[in-house]
Formats: sequence, structure tokens, C-alpha cells
Amino acid sequence: MSQYWSKLVHRLEPYVPGEQPQDQAYIKLNTNESPYPPSPAIQRVLGTFAAENLRRYPDPQSGDLVTALAAYHGLGDDQVFVGNGSDEVLAHAFQALLQQDTPILFPDISYSFYPVYCALYRIDFERIALDEAFRIRVDDYRRGNGGVILPNPNAPTGIALTLRDIARLLEQNRSSAVIIDEAYVDFGAATAVPLIADHPNLLVTRSFSKSRNLAGLRLGYALGHADLIEGLQRVKNSFNSYPVDSLASSIGLASIDDEDYFQDCIRRIVASREKLVTDLRQLGFETFPSSANFVFVRHPDRNAEKLYFDLKSAGILVRYFGGARIDDCLRITVGSDDECAALISALASLLK
Amino acid sequence: MSQYWSKLVHRLEPYVPGEQPQDQAYIKLNTNESPYPPSPAIQRVLGTFAAENLRRYPDPQSGDLVTALAAYHGLGDDQVFVGNGSDEVLAHAFQALLQQDTPILFPDISYSFYPVYCALYRIDFERIALDEAFRIRVDDYRRGNGGVILPNPNAPTGIALTLRDIARLLEQNRSSAVIIDEAYVDFGAATAVPLIADHPNLLVTRSFSKSRNLAGLRLGYALGHADLIEGLQRVKNSFNSYPVDSLASSIGLASIDDEDYFQDCIRRIVASREKLVTDLRQLGFETFPSSANFVFVRHPDRNAEKLYFDLKSAGILVRYFGGARIDDCLRITVGSDDECAALISALASLLK
Repeated sequence: MSQYWSKLVHRLEPYVPGEQPQDQAYIKLNTNESPYPPSPAIQRVLGTFAAENLRRYPDPQSGDLVTALAAYHGLGDDQVFVGNGSDEVLAHAFQALLQQDTPILFPDISYSFYPVYCALYRIDFERIALDEAFRIRVDDYRRGNGGVILPNPNAPTGIALTLRDIARLLEQNRSSAVIIDEAYVDFGAATAVPLIADHPNLLVTRSFSKSRNLAGLRLGYALGHADLIEGLQRVKNSFNSYPVDSLASSIGLASIDDEDYFQDCIRRIVASREKLVTDLRQLGFETFPSSANFVFVRHPDRNAEKLYFDLKSAGILVRYFGGARIDDCLRITVGSDDECAALISALASLLK
Repeated sequence: MSQYWSKLVHRLEPYVPGEQPQDQAYIKLNTNESPYPPSPAIQRVLGTFAAENLRRYPDPQSGDLVTALAAYHGLGDDQVFVGNGSDEVLAHAFQALLQQDTPILFPDISYSFYPVYCALYRIDFERIALDEAFRIRVDDYRRGNGGVILPNPNAPTGIALTLRDIARLLEQNRSSAVIIDEAYVDFGAATAVPLIADHPNLLVTRSFSKSRNLAGLRLGYALGHADLIEGLQRVKNSFNSYPVDSLASSIGLASIDDEDYFQDCIRRIVASREKLVTDLRQLGFETFPSSANFVFVRHPDRNAEKLYFDLKSAGILVRYFGGARIDDCLRITVGSDDECAALISALASLLK
């Protein structure tokens, strides 16, 4: 607390990310990182990148990366915006598109950074309740709003909307921006990217952290109509001219180029997820249908917070959020098969 | 322009950085980059960094880097804040400390990003005129304000305030934050860091881009009282949990460790600057006393904008800003001795 803070700062309740212990002594199933290293091409980039290049500022528009992403998604260069992680991209999108006179809408159980952005940019919001099975009902978003944002699949539930549902949401919501946060889409949900062509108010955000195994690199992007992208550019260029460093650009390009490795990692994670779900159910957990690289679970007669602490004592980190409706739930990242087996073994002991 | 933009976006006039041509065919003396590569230790970091580490999120607090910077400056860890370039650090500082009810103050000729931040965060400001020799008169800042920000040395003039002037500014300004932007301080100005101990309202910002030859890396930091740093943390943690990627942290650490190389590059740049100033004066240019890695010049009977374009045609980029009071001036980055010689040769031809 300081007399020199702006009024805003006193009011902020910052986002709290999952624990990131630096000793890596835990089996870490708490922040949805990939159990696999990034593409082998990345190590080659590190081995050949000339440090000399770092004396120059990067391209402020990250042109090569934008072009590669545009080609990958079948869009124009002017439909792509890149940033320092999808959290930065989302922050700019809140300020550029969602800072409106009418409250914006997002699910009551969703990415807990959304209300934090709202506080940062003084945006009013309404939380729309998920149904009893923790599903988003798009018809509940049929009301006046300053914008809509939701993850697909949703976090921390992992439950995906169909493309048809997203299309219906867009049909009924033409006068404000709709942001679909696809941080986890590669693990099994349908992307909304094909809807961009017909919906000038649709912004899709993506991350390199999860499905490209590059959480440590901080690279995210947004896709949408060129006018929406220009709005993001205007905010970005009023905040930081060069958010993406030269190394991150080169590494991002190498990742995009290695489609086989990307698909292979996803296949492995999806297979591990299905086995993990089976094993958790055998232990008596209720699991929600996940299209992500994590599973959201609860046990009918065990306290979730206690399970979280007991697992931590056993050297395994998972995520416990607490709060209304989900204080009996845990979010568990899909690790390697060995990590999942260790988790199941630890849980079996704890539940005995 | 889009109906989906927030009102704010319509009003923004983004910062325009110096040209960053990607073909590198120019002699680039326009964005104050170093003519020298970063420390050889950086190439070694790239050669040994395990890409595997990138699958994990970085430490959200960049603890190792914070500790190294704190030790380097003789401060506590809680007095250091790191970010994705000093532009990001400044952006957060504007929102955390300068967003006040009373207008903030900065020089009329200064870093042109300051009014852009003000627009982004709806901060009123007054520009305080430099004197006729383009010097900051600290007594002119003796008036009610919501905060003061100024670069030392100033940009684009290169003129430094003495530590005594900064101390006087702080004595007369105890009820609002004072930010000293030391992006260029290593090239010959006195740092305000020793004043931090006695001034809880002083924030000093720094960059790895110029004196550490790492513009392409995007690393900057702020130093100040722990309460000010906490204010920055609160904004950062409401914006992006992990602004500094794992590679940037490792590279920054290696740069801090190689003090000899750092000092050697600075010595060479300062020597080149003195020669460049002599040569420019011989060509009839008026030069302002520079404590930075650039010189600010004007020619009594040549149009600066035309000189800028003629130099560009000759393959040399310098910076022409235009605007009130400085439309007859050019800002020229101190390059290698060969680059400076090429500039002098080109100017000699143009001035014939």
C-alpha cells in the first residue's frame, strides 16, 4: 500500500497463477504444461541463432510469424495479431474490444483472469451460470451486452461447445465483439476460425503454451477480421512497440513448421487423457467430459482441498481453485503416462 | 475503424518507432541500437539452453533475474521489477503510479511514448518547456502535479541532468511519484539509484536494449521503494503473469555477469561519440552535449527533413522527428567507427 499508487492499484485483485516451483521436484500437473519437450527443431534454432542479431530491435509487427500463422490458418496477414503470450493478447483485447458501456458476459466458471482484466480496465461484467453439468448454454447469452468472452473448451471444466453452438452464439450476438479463447482447442474441440469469414465481430485467441509445448516462451495470437486486428494493434502500439522478441519469433516459426511433431504430441496427450479418465473413474471420481489437456474431477465423498494438500505432500501438484460451485473439484493436467500412473497410485493410497 | 472498438481505441494515436527494415541493408543509425553484439556469454547460453525447459512456464516473478539485478544495484529483491522491455515497464508505471487526478509533468521535448501512454490510460499531462539550449530546468517542475517523468539523459536531446538537479527535483516533489527513465544513463549520466534509499516516491527505469546490446531480447526493469514495486507487480499480475520468458531471463543473467564486456562496449561507444561530435561540428552542425549513445544535431542552413531523406537514399537511416522546436534537428545513433565515418562522408557530399 502506498500513497503514490493510483486509485486503480488499490482496487486490483491480481490473478494468481498455479504454483511454479523452480526446483521442479514435483510431478507438476497444475498448470496445463505439456509433458513433452517442444519440437526438436527448437533446439536446432537455439544452436544456430546468431546472438549478434539480438543487438537489433525485432520487427515491431513480427511480420514473418504473422505470415506463417496466416498461412497456417488460411487467413490474410491483416487477420493475425501476435503477442507476448495469449494473456497479453487477451489483455489488449479486453481494452480494445470489451471496454464498453454495457456489461460484458462470460461464464460463472471460467478462466479466472477474465474478471481481473475487467478490474484493470474498469469493465462491468455479468457472469452467466453454467448448467448443472457445467455446460455453457449459449442461449443464456442472448441479452444486451458489451461483448462476450468464453474459452472453448472451457477452463477449468474442459467441456467444449460444438461449432454449431458457437455459430448460434454469433448469430444472436452481432452488435458486440465475441471472443473465443482457444488456448486448449487443439486437444479436441472444433475451432471457430472458419466462422471468421462471415463474422466481423469474432476474435479467436490462441496460445503456443499448451499444444506447442512452449509455455516458457510466451507466445500467443489472435485471429479475426482485419478491423478487429487493427484495434488490437492500436492498443499494442500504445503499450509496447516490440512485444515479441527475435528469439521467440524464430522459435515460433520453427514450431509451426513441424506439424508432424505437433500432431503427434496431441495424439499422445489425448490417449493419456482417455486412460487417465478411466483410471480416475475406477477410483470413484466423477469426471467432466474433457476436450482439453486437463481433466476436471470431483470425488463424491472426499474433500477436494484436502486431496490437493495430500497430493502435494506426496510430491504431486494439481490445481484446487475453491470458490462457489467448484470447491469440491480438482483440475488435473494430463501428464506423461508415467506421471498419470504416479498420480493414480498416490490417489489410490489416499482413498484407501 | 470498427463498430466493435472501444471508445478509447478510436482516440489512440499509437507510438511510431524508428524504421526497422528487415533486410538490414541500411547503415542503421536511427533506433539507438548498439553497433556491437551482446556479450559472447549470450551465444554460449543459446548453445547450452535445453529447449526442453521451454515446456514449463517461467517463474512468474523472474526471481533469479530480480536477485541478480538487486545485487548489481545494491538493493533488495523487493526493490526490483522486471518486464518485457522498458516500454512495458513504463506502461505499467504510468497505470500504477501516474494515473492521478492532477496532470502529470514531462518535458515538451522528450520520449514521444509518454503522451501515448497518457492517452492509453486517460492521464492528463502538462508539457514543461526545455530552455532555449534544450535543457531541463528542474525548478519549472515546482508546481502541483500527479507525478513527474523525465529521461536522464533526456531523449532525443542526449542532455543529462546532474544528480544534484535530480535530488532538487525530488526535494521539491514529495507528494507524487517521480520516474527517472534511465534507458541511456550508462553512456555518461549519473544514475539516480543512490537517491532511492531516501525517496520513497522515486522510480528508476532501465533497459537492456542499449548499453547491453540486447534490443532484440526485450528486457527492462524498474528500481525503487518496495511499495512502488508492489504497485507495479499488482498491475503486471492483472495483465500478464509471465511477461519475461525463460530464455530472456537466462540471457539477461549472462549479460549482468559479464561486467567487463559491458564496460568495454560503453567505452568504445563514448569514444566514437566524441569523434562523431567533432566531425559533425567540422561539417557545420550544431550539436547538443550528449551523455547518450546518440547525438542530436542541427545544421544552420540545411533542412533536416531533406537531409534525412537524402541520407536514406544514400543507404543511411537516421531519425527525423519533426514537430515544434525540433523540426530542424536530426537524432543520430552512435554506430561503429566505420558506420560513423560512412555517415560523415555521406554528409560531406550532401553539404558540398
